[in-house]
Formats: sequence, C-alpha cells, structure tokens
Amino acid sequence: MHRVRVRVVEDALDANNTIARANRDDFDRHGVTVVNVMSAPGAGKTTILERILRDGIGDLRVGVLEGDVQGSLDADRLAHLHVPVTQLNTGSGFGGECHLDANMVRSALPSVPLDEIDLLIVENVGNLVCPAEFHIGEDARIMVASVAEGDDKPGKYPLMFRTCELVVVNKIDLLEHVDFSMERFDGFLDAVHPGVDRMRMSARTGEGVDALRDWLARLPDRAAAPA
Amino acid sequence: MHRVRVRVVEDALDANNTIARANRDDFDRHGVTVVNVMSAPGAGKTTILERILRDGIGDLRVGVLEGDVQGSLDADRLAHLHVPVTQLNTGSGFGGECHLDANMVRSALPSVPLDEIDLLIVENVGNLVCPAEFHIGEDARIMVASVAEGDDKPGKYPLMFRTCELVVVNKIDLLEHVDFSMERFDGFLDAVHPGVDRMRMSARTGEGVDALRDWLARLPDRAAAPA
Repeated sequence: MHRVRVRVVEDALDANNTIARANRDDFDRHGVTVVNVMSAPGAGKTTILERILRDGIGDLRVGVLEGDVQGSLDADRLAHLHVPVTQLNTGSGFGGECHLDANMVRSALPSVPLDEIDLLIVENVGNLVCPAEFHIGEDARIMVASVAEGDDKPGKYPLMFRTCELVVVNKIDLLEHVDFSMERFDGFLDAVHPGVDRMRMSARTGEGVDALRDWLARLPDRAAAPA
Repeated sequence: MHRVRVRVVEDALDANNTIARANRDDFDRHGVTVVNVMSAPGAGKTTILERILRDGIGDLRVGVLEGDVQGSLDADRLAHLHVPVTQLNTGSGFGGECHLDANMVRSALPSVPLDEIDLLIVENVGNLVCPAEFHIGEDARIMVASVAEGDDKPGKYPLMFRTCELVVVNKIDLLEHVDFSMERFDGFLDAVHPGVDRMRMSARTGEGVDALRDWLARLPDRAAAPA
C-alpha cells in the first residue's frame, strides 16, 4: 500500500517536473526571471509585495502571479500598484489544492504578459509543506517566516527551508512582544540549510525592505550567470 | 485529466472515511472523546495545550496525539505535563504529508492508552488546507487562528473554518501591534460558517484560556448527546 502510494507520488512529481521545464523554456524565451515566494498563511508575503512594488525594483518590469485557494483578496490589494497581476485559484472541488504546481502555473501563462515583464513574482499558497515539493519553472525561491510563528519552524518544516535560495524573517517589529530567539531560529536553519542567504525585515514598518529589493534587482543577472 | 484526478481524490477520501469510522468505533468502545485541533503553522496550538494541561480539564483524563512532519519538538514541550503524549510523524519520503489522515492516526492507536484516558486531543500538522479534508474519527474540531496571521484567513481558507465546531482567535495580546480587525475577521467567518462557536484568547498571557478549558470539559457530554 505504502509502495503504491510512493510510486503514485513519484509519478506525479515526475510529471510536474516535465511541465516545470516547459514553463522554464517559455520564461527563458521571453527573458523573464521567475521567483517563487512561499510561506505559512499570514507571514506577510502580500504586504512585502506591496512595499516592494510601490517603489519598484530597479529598472525591472515586474508582474505578479497570485496563488490562492479561493478569492482574490491578495490580488485586490495589489491592484493599485500598476503592475500586471494574474489571479490563480486552486480551489476547484474539495478544499482546494494546498500549493501551486507546474500545470496550474502553465494554465495561467496565457494571462501573464510575458513580453512586457522582466521579473515574474509568484505568490504561492500559504503552506509550509507541499509548495516545496512542486517546482513551477522558477529561477529562485524565497521562504518568508514571521517571528510570530515561533523560532522552531525550520526544524519542523525542513524541506521548505532547504529548497529555497533566500529566507526572509518578517515582522521583526513584533520581536519584543513574542517568544522568538533569532539565535535559535538561525540554529534550526543552519541545521537544514547551512549558509543560505537570509535577511530580516518588517514589511509593516519598511525596515529591511530595501535589502530584498536589491536582492530581487540582482536576480536576473544571477539567474543568467553559469552555475 | 481533471476528471481522473477528481475520481482519484474521491476514492482516497472515501477510503479515509472508512478508516475514520473504524477509528471512531474504537474510540467509542473505550469511551474516549476525540478533538482534532488544527491551525496554520505557529498559531499557538502547543502553547494552548501547555496552558490547558497544566491545570487539567475538570476530572477528565487527557491524552495527546502530536502530529508533525518531522521531529518531536511539540511533544517534548508537553513531556513535563504528566499526560500521555504520542508522537506521530508524517514525513516518510518527500517533504512529508501536510496533514493527518485516518490511516496515520490508526497506525498510532496501539501507542495511545485508550483505556486510561477520557479525552484525546489530536494536534494536527500546521496547515490551513488539507487537514480539513481528512476526518480522523474525531467528535469535534477546533480551528485556531492567530491575530498575527491577519483578519482575512476565513475568506482565503474557507473549508477549514467551515468544518470546525469552534474557532479560537489566539494571540490577542498582539492586537495593538498588528493590523487585525476583529470585526472584519468575524465578517469573513460569518460568511463561511454563520454562528459557529468562537472565543478569543492569549495562550501566552493566559487570558481567555479558561473558556476553552470549560468548552473541552463539556465536550464528552455534548458528543454523547443525540444530535
């Protein structure tokens, strides 16, 4: 029973990777760099995007793909920022998919103006488990963790923190009001992903947001450089 | 393709419900009431349990089943409270399952001293999507939402808030430091689950914890009453 399940999951992930490569070919052909932003629900992904997009990212033309189980609450929040935002809902039937996969992203691509953007920011469904298992054709992944979630999350959800290029610790304006030790968090993070890029910010106050803006501005050059 | 997927998912949920009924029969035979506690990662489930278990729940003998992708960080936190705690990890292969299902719970039952407890509290994997789809044989579900996650979560993850008997809004000690409107939250909640029981608390300060203790103390009688 377990082996059958493992086989089914392996087949599903193989199929996903094939479609992710097709997405990647499309992104490359249009010269679009793609970043997949992941976090638990309510870690602040949308507020970070609001901050970043308000002042822009260098000279880059940016688009956003919003993944949600249902509704367009996040896309609505970004609507006034004059960047193209495409809503992608995963909620057809049952409780909805808990992650974006390559095929869902592929189905949304006709609505994304790839010819008019340089950087596509994909906001994944809020979830610390499954989004990490599904590549969508992205160049890089950012994992956002809020200090309100506690300092043990890299230890409890290791794959998510292992398969990203940048860890953003958000809501540092709450540090004095919650039980969160940055040293303990860094210890858990170093155990699962030693040396990964990391930064601290408060999207609410704006502290630390420029560092992420710079990181994103440099992403197309880094993505184009030979590994 | 979509219809095949729907069929596969329906079959999986049917199989899950069959095993959930078997779990339920076992719980009933031992006179154990079961509550399934769900939330996003870091909403405070374990801190709530620490608070509740420290002073006990009326005369009830309580056991805990801890669901985590990996590790035993939460079970370790409860170890000093002198209640039987069983760890259940979902992380065999890939990134781990993002939820508990009936079969996982069934596999853990031999380690749960059903003859020695009246109430089994199951702490699910932190996730606002899939846990709602999988019954495990429980009598009731509690959904914990932290004010740090924002007030829009019932609108974005409706199934989770629709399939529970109680919604606990936690971390109200942070209310003055975050952008959270209780009215807006209640509005979203009423739209997806009108009239559901709800309470507000801070597990960190202890405010409001007694109301949850009372709710849990009355649960066995409510569960035994004819619907």
